Amino acid sequence: MIKVLAADIGGTNIRASVVTEQGQIKQCVRSQIDLGDKNLSEDDLVERLAAFFFGILKNETSIKAIGMGFPGFFMGDTGLLVASPNLPNLHNVELAKRLSIELNLPVHLQNDALCAAVGEHTYGAGKGSTNLLHVTLGTGIGGGLILNNMPYTGENGMAMELGHLRVAYDNAARSCGCGGSGCVEAYASATAIATKYFEVSGIRVDAKQVYDRACKNERDAINVFESAGYYLGVAIAQSIKLLDIKTVTISGGLTGAWQILYPAIVSSLDTELIAPLKGKVKVLRSALDDNAGIFGAAAIAQKMV
Amino acid sequence: MIKVLAADIGGTNIRASVVTEQGQIKQCVRSQIDLGDKNLSEDDLVERLAAFFFGILKNETSIKAIGMGFPGFFMGDTGLLVASPNLPNLHNVELAKRLSIELNLPVHLQNDALCAAVGEHTYGAGKGSTNLLHVTLGTGIGGGLILNNMPYTGENGMAMELGHLRVAYDNAARSCGCGGSGCVEAYASATAIATKYFEVSGIRVDAKQVYDRACKNERDAINVFESAGYYLGVAIAQSIKLLDIKTVTISGGLTGAWQILYPAIVSSLDTELIAPLKGKVKVLRSALDDNAGIFGAAAIAQKMV
Repeated sequence: MIKVLAADIGGTNIRASVVTEQGQIKQCVRSQIDLGDKNLSEDDLVERLAAFFFGILKNETSIKAIGMGFPGFFMGDTGLLVASPNLPNLHNVELAKRLSIELNLPVHLQNDALCAAVGEHTYGAGKGSTNLLHVTLGTGIGGGLILNNMPYTGENGMAMELGHLRVAYDNAARSCGCGGSGCVEAYASATAIATKYFEVSGIRVDAKQVYDRACKNERDAINVFESAGYYLGVAIAQSIKLLDIKTVTISGGLTGAWQILYPAIVSSLDTELIAPLKGKVKVLRSALDDNAGIFGAAAIAQKMV
Repeated sequence: MIKVLAADIGGTNIRASVVTEQGQIKQCVRSQIDLGDKNLSEDDLVERLAAFFFGILKNETSIKAIGMGFPGFFMGDTGLLVASPNLPNLHNVELAKRLSIELNLPVHLQNDALCAAVGEHTYGAGKGSTNLLHVTLGTGIGGGLILNNMPYTGENGMAMELGHLRVAYDNAARSCGCGGSGCVEAYASATAIATKYFEVSGIRVDAKQVYDRACKNERDAINVFESAGYYLGVAIAQSIKLLDIKTVTISGGLTGAWQILYPAIVSSLDTELIAPLKGKVKVLRSALDDNAGIFGAAAIAQKMV
């Protein structure tokens, strides 16, 4: 393998690591980056990203390529950013090509959740599976799909919007940031957990603090996490009814609450799946913690997929 | 291409055609076959199917292979029948292999809805598309998926159970034949249409007769079909959010009501899809009428896929 720089880019911060020829993470650089400005121009985006990577590259030698996971839709493996929910003004940006010219290195870009799927499949809990359905469970909910050992992007680069599968259709269905309602993201994300806990307890804390309360056997907090696991299981079940995949992996901050989430997910899958599929799906916690996306970006840059 | 015998096998009847080297359907044979007996043994199944095909083969020369669509789950393209909802006692039957020995010809078997997808993709409205989501809309609802010009079966041969995607989760969700509730099959199949029409009108007629009433501008009948189209659109939208496929084709008896169903499906897709996917999906009526499954079975036997 070649030595690469791999990055996981979010709306407000960016993490990057050098990944060595042996597949080891050598260092980790974190930085704030403001991609939340809806009026950001294409040139601004390229400039901000390039400045960040320049800062690392000047102290590193023998980097042969850069891989990045980015919150947006990419056309296949071309690195063309079709659209990004964070940057509604930008469409069809040749982001990999422009960054490659700026940085004078091959640059590979892919959707952040798909990067996490690739990382989990190449280095993590999904290693050895031919097909993998990966869920990123954090502030929002995303999905990434590996079919026949290859990342699946969809015809417009928009596949696996698992966070927007509906788990409720009635009039009381919760509103989602996508403009719709009833999406699993509005029921099982960290944001949803904090909201639901506030509704039942009147206390405004974040999902991590709700989990701390659950660990102290606070019934409301446990209920909120169990409900999140149930709804996540519903969404995974709908996906399995279509895709019939044996291995599901889950990464992201909320997997810290695995001991409560996992039994709820499994119970929900058992209820929701059609009889012949029951018991055929293995749900695994990420083996890479926060680094699934970084490892996936590295694998893409190393052309392991 | 080679001359083949292609068959579409249902629970109570079977249709077969000779498909010539030029891809033309030469004749069509229909016969009743009782596969609804839950105690049918593996030997009985093989015997009944073989007897039917012998009857045709004795009058035909130069048939080089047989393709069949069958209501069951098959492991990849091996012809191993993993399970069939109609035949709950049978598991892991080497059906293609046994029929091939009996009939002394290569026999290829695949799930009936996937056969219809292959037919539509090879010869019908999905011709030219790289990826295709096909829906069979009749007594029940099935799905077949073509990815990168190849049939997608799933890891257990159970992919695309689209009829069992949920379109309702509340306590009033309709019961489905699968044992679950809220499945789109309980809202948009021919069976569901007859049931719902009876509920609103007190009149017990089949879906075809409901359609005849809709054509005479009977409001209840129109509502029932519009509602079916709406729910089918909801299920298709969930599938597109995962798979991001541009082309959807629909075959089966209910497509006779296309003029009512189509606008309802499109309207529902427009409501249900996330913003960047809106307007990116083309929904087409089958170009093969009842013969999508036959053409698909022929294509599989001719090894065109």
